[in-house]
Amino acid sequence: MKAFMDKDFLLSTETAKHLFHDYAEQLPIIDYHCHLSPREIYEDRQFENITQVWLGGDHYKWRLMRSNGVEERYITGDASDREKFQKWAETLGLAIGNPLYHWSHLELRNYFGYQGILNGDTAGEVWQLCNEKLKTMSARQLIAGSRVEALCTTDDPADSLEWHKKIAEDGFAVKVLPTFRPDQALGIEKPGYLDYLQSLAEAAGDEIHCFNCLVKVLKKRMDAFDALGCRISDHGLEAVTYAPAEKSEIMDIFKRRKAGQIPTAEEARKFRTALLLALGREYARRGWAMQIHFGVIRNNAQRVFKALGPDAGVDSIGDAASIKELAAFLNALDETGELPKTILYSLNPNDNAAIETVMGCFQTGEAVGKLQHGSGWWFNDHKQGMIEQMTSLANEGMLAGFIGMLTDSRSFLSYARHEYFRRILCDLVGSWVENGEYPNDEKALKQIIEGVCCENARRYLGL
Amino acid sequence: MKAFMDKDFLLSTETAKHLFHDYAEQLPIIDYHCHLSPREIYEDRQFENITQVWLGGDHYKWRLMRSNGVEERYITGDASDREKFQKWAETLGLAIGNPLYHWSHLELRNYFGYQGILNGDTAGEVWQLCNEKLKTMSARQLIAGSRVEALCTTDDPADSLEWHKKIAEDGFAVKVLPTFRPDQALGIEKPGYLDYLQSLAEAAGDEIHCFNCLVKVLKKRMDAFDALGCRISDHGLEAVTYAPAEKSEIMDIFKRRKAGQIPTAEEARKFRTALLLALGREYARRGWAMQIHFGVIRNNAQRVFKALGPDAGVDSIGDAASIKELAAFLNALDETGELPKTILYSLNPNDNAAIETVMGCFQTGEAVGKLQHGSGWWFNDHKQGMIEQMTSLANEGMLAGFIGMLTDSRSFLSYARHEYFRRILCDLVGSWVENGEYPNDEKALKQIIEGVCCENARRYLGL
Amino acid sequence: MKAFMDKDFLLSTETAKHLFHDYAEQLPIIDYHCHLSPREIYEDRQFENITQVWLGGDHYKWRLMRSNGVEERYITGDASDREKFQKWAETLGLAIGNPLYHWSHLELRNYFGYQGILNGDTAGEVWQLCNEKLKTMSARQLIAGSRVEALCTTDDPADSLEWHKKIAEDGFAVKVLPTFRPDQALGIEKPGYLDYLQSLAEAAGDEIHCFNCLVKVLKKRMDAFDALGCRISDHGLEAVTYAPAEKSEIMDIFKRRKAGQIPTAEEARKFRTALLLALGREYARRGWAMQIHFGVIRNNAQRVFKALGPDAGVDSIGDAASIKELAAFLNALDETGELPKTILYSLNPNDNAAIETVMGCFQTGEAVGKLQHGSGWWFNDHKQGMIEQMTSLANEGMLAGFIGMLTDSRSFLSYARHEYFRRILCDLVGSWVENGEYPNDEKALKQIIEGVCCENARRYLGL
Repeated sequence: MKAFMDKDFLLSTETAKHLFHDYAEQLPIIDYHCHLSPREIYEDRQFENITQVWLGGDHYKWRLMRSNGVEERYITGDASDREKFQKWAETLGLAIGNPLYHWSHLELRNYFGYQGILNGDTAGEVWQLCNEKLKTMSARQLIAGSRVEALCTTDDPADSLEWHKKIAEDGFAVKVLPTFRPDQALGIEKPGYLDYLQSLAEAAGDEIHCFNCLVKVLKKRMDAFDALGCRISDHGLEAVTYAPAEKSEIMDIFKRRKAGQIPTAEEARKFRTALLLALGREYARRGWAMQIHFGVIRNNAQRVFKALGPDAGVDSIGDAASIKELAAFLNALDETGELPKTILYSLNPNDNAAIETVMGCFQTGEAVGKLQHGSGWWFNDHKQGMIEQMTSLANEGMLAGFIGMLTDSRSFLSYARHEYFRRILCDLVGSWVENGEYPNDEKALKQIIEGVCCENARRYLGL
Repeated sequence: MKAFMDKDFLLSTETAKHLFHDYAEQLPIIDYHCHLSPREIYEDRQFENITQVWLGGDHYKWRLMRSNGVEERYITGDASDREKFQKWAETLGLAIGNPLYHWSHLELRNYFGYQGILNGDTAGEVWQLCNEKLKTMSARQLIAGSRVEALCTTDDPADSLEWHKKIAEDGFAVKVLPTFRPDQALGIEKPGYLDYLQSLAEAAGDEIHCFNCLVKVLKKRMDAFDALGCRISDHGLEAVTYAPAEKSEIMDIFKRRKAGQIPTAEEARKFRTALLLALGREYARRGWAMQIHFGVIRNNAQRVFKALGPDAGVDSIGDAASIKELAAFLNALDETGELPKTILYSLNPNDNAAIETVMGCFQTGEAVGKLQHGSGWWFNDHKQGMIEQMTSLANEGMLAGFIGMLTDSRSFLSYARHEYFRRILCDLVGSWVENGEYPNDEKALKQIIEGVCCENARRYLGL
Repeated sequence: MKAFMDKDFLLSTETAKHLFHDYAEQLPIIDYHCHLSPREIYEDRQFENITQVWLGGDHYKWRLMRSNGVEERYITGDASDREKFQKWAETLGLAIGNPLYHWSHLELRNYFGYQGILNGDTAGEVWQLCNEKLKTMSARQLIAGSRVEALCTTDDPADSLEWHKKIAEDGFAVKVLPTFRPDQALGIEKPGYLDYLQSLAEAAGDEIHCFNCLVKVLKKRMDAFDALGCRISDHGLEAVTYAPAEKSEIMDIFKRRKAGQIPTAEEARKFRTALLLALGREYARRGWAMQIHFGVIRNNAQRVFKALGPDAGVDSIGDAASIKELAAFLNALDETGELPKTILYSLNPNDNAAIETVMGCFQTGEAVGKLQHGSGWWFNDHKQGMIEQMTSLANEGMLAGFIGMLTDSRSFLSYARHEYFRRILCDLVGSWVENGEYPNDEKALKQIIEGVCCENARRYLGL
């Protein structure tokens, strides 16, 4: 029996141990997609207690507690932080097979030096220990101490980027770069769309009268993002749709929306297609990468959404994605030579193989892995999900060109997930070598591990 | 090489052996979903020969024989029972990797004391042995001898529950409870619907003139089921659909059906949505659990269906389920606080991850695992299917709260499937412990194994 | 650590080694589906260099090179063969986990006697070695030397079968048989359809005025194929659809097409349904098997398609298949007793379980495994894909009746894929035996391995 989560956690062969300890473990982190608050980074936020850090906004943990029958008052309600931590510890203690079990214990080991196990019985001692250590910790220290070389936050085009500017002026050793995420600009059917256009126009110091103006304003915001080092955009979509339409129709849909008329579902699809194509072309021109996250249904439980707002742990995997439309959308950009570097993430693990094969159709000499299949996302961000994504990628293409892990997180402690990923990567590669499926070729293995852990992302994003 | 199906069958680590032999093996069985005949239980049925027991109504075995090229006369036709058994033995002997191979040999070991292997060569000796032993066996003895504590049969609301009453009066030590399965009441587009309404009304001693009457009559039948200990309902659907409509439209659809007009597909969807919501609310009020089985296409081969009727082995996995509609249906009940405890089963294994994540949206403090992902169902009731369902559940939620195995069977011998499940559960949990992914914490492991094997189901259903 | 790709490659237990080395390894090959050129077989083609053999038309390799960022001129462009080989070697050297890594090294070992590894550093020596050996190699020698007993090429009904006739007259020891693939006859909505009808009519020495004539002419071509030993047909479809229509409507759709009117999508669906049913009935009458390949989207990247034509490496998995329509199509043939032996392949691995269960509905005593789930196809033709297909088949039916591997290839070297498959099969079966899940029954294991490796295909196709 292996010891519980010791230094060789998840490393089942000598080759895996070698690859992790001699290469992967020390490499810097390029966290090219996260949801950290640039303000908290600038202000170098500190935390009073472990409940604030762990349960303040982490809907993964909220869901797990609800699944364990914990009452909402101990999750997002008015119970004390100590009580909430107790309920969390009791839940976690039984969460066998769940990635939160591993993430939490990696964080306890890496940031708090706690080597034990957390459950209802040990909650008290862990509470004490963590809160004591937290007194000496801060956002920047946690980032820098985790060997982060660069991180990309997620930002709305209407955002002033005030905090990014301040961080840049401040000379923080870690690159903190914005990511351009214009989801709201695409949400033409949403109630607050006109207000959003107003704030977007203001951020650009311009006005938005027509569809062309919208694109022009978004380009101006891209200039501002670019000036602060932005190298990547992001889009969250229920499905990648492809509904081409005449420019005049798009102009008309937008004009009517300005006049207060909500478009039909089909009109909204056409508008999104047109705007996403326009954005994609612009990303290509700038050499930015385009991230597309799809396959998700948001805010399933309206009861919770109304009480707590979005990101409250009531989202799920969706099955509405059409692979044919995804391929048609990529083709529309590729046909004119305007397809940017693209990273595809589906929340639905059934899409893995199809994504690999669609990607393969649009790869070109422009970059190693110009199209990328993003690392196991959200509900797939666990051992099995990562193994499946990497195996699928290796089966259909070049795992060696993969840009690897990202945290996708709001927490300053979640760099432990990069360690988790690297252990799994090294174990997978090691298993192939030990099983005689790939030669024990030190040079090649070093290149593969260093590539996937950080070198590929650095090169891909020009960081 | 491990010996074939010995006492450590499927237990690949010391921890797995410990968990199975020291905990799981002796625990009672709560078989909360099966298709046993309450009449046969009441009458304590006996069997003349092993062909009657094994091949009388088991469409799993029929399918396998057809896949092996066996002529229909040796399956459901006029060949002798001995001849049929021979063909079955020849088929099974080559059925490597099929769960029937394991189920059948577990049954031979547990009920007939046969330690050998069954194939064409040994069919004669097994025939003799089993038939000899069957003389001393009966339905009740098989149930009680399998450590069954409670079992839930599957019953139509129009059923008089005559046999359940007799069993209850008779004082059988095992709880035999009815399950409320109103599929026929939902089948408004079916030819015999009006006749069914008539028999339903008679069972309730009432009349059904309108949609409201239908709901009222179903509630009266729920009272009758409840009085006999019913704690759970069941629904078999091609897909969970959500098509909300005004009450007046539903009333009208039903009224026209009463007048002989078959509803359109969309009207039938609306009717099913409305009735299922009404039923769900009533289950919630009573504290019953609601089972939903979906993702199946029935009676694909009309040739066989016409010759043999339903449940003849010509059903398949379907792919028509919409996760979005499933989530919307659950939300419609949840929004008003009327979502009952719900157990979701899809016949399509592709739905696993989506089901976990939809469930997670509606979990609350009302119960540990208020929403449950049912154990690998029908075509997924095999080693791989169970591992995938449990791993998926663990990845996205609390495996420790899972209510575990059910037989879903028509056979008094199939409790061996609980043993099969428990071995697989213990091996899975054991592998995580031995691999350092979960601590070797005796107290927690005991709680998890006892919970999943029977304690969770007992608590969930209040048995 | 196991040595890299030695004689026990992929064989992880003693039982696996025994099954492979003592049975599987020496068995002949029945390659019942490939895309070899009968002309090249007749003319006994030779190759100047390894780039011609490996990169001349292999879109699998092209895709991998593009994924590795290789410029198109080194793939399909004007770079020299030596330069192309260098880029391929550099790509392959890093293609960890990709089946091409194994296929290529098996071919190097089996045909060129090269035991090393191919990468950028060794490209020069491999280039020399292979080109030297190629001087003594030819198409027929490669086929016969690979223990091929029979192979089925893929041929259009309009093909004159000139080269098949010549091969037959020539007395080549290996059976080289045509396969009837009438995809173009089904493509009524395609621009060149009328020209195709003309060439089809000419091949049959007949005229096509109406739908009935079309069927009649196709039957005449079946006679010609049959006379040259054809035992099997093939169909490539985006999805198996079922849209029944009156014969008069089909006649009318065809008549209008003859007059130049392109049918609507729904009309094309109806036409395809009608023609596929007519063909299926005829296959059944002749005892031919019907192959159906579905779940693919062709020519996604129009830029590449326009430059290079079809089969240029820009196809992908599709998700448009409807299991319900597949089942309805099979039922339409089965209901009248006219369902031929049928082999189903979906490019989408998500369809595996559904395919097994649909197949199970239509199995009969007419053949062992009358319906077959084809071996992992194209993007699933790798270790994981094969394990998943065989495990799925074993879970739901009779793996022992599986007709096994095919190359689906244009290359005379790709018989190595049969070896790859057999190693994986023996390892899978061996793992079940060693784990106590199937008895160590030499007679049964021999029958299973010999059956899946060649005996089942030989019997199924009457070769």
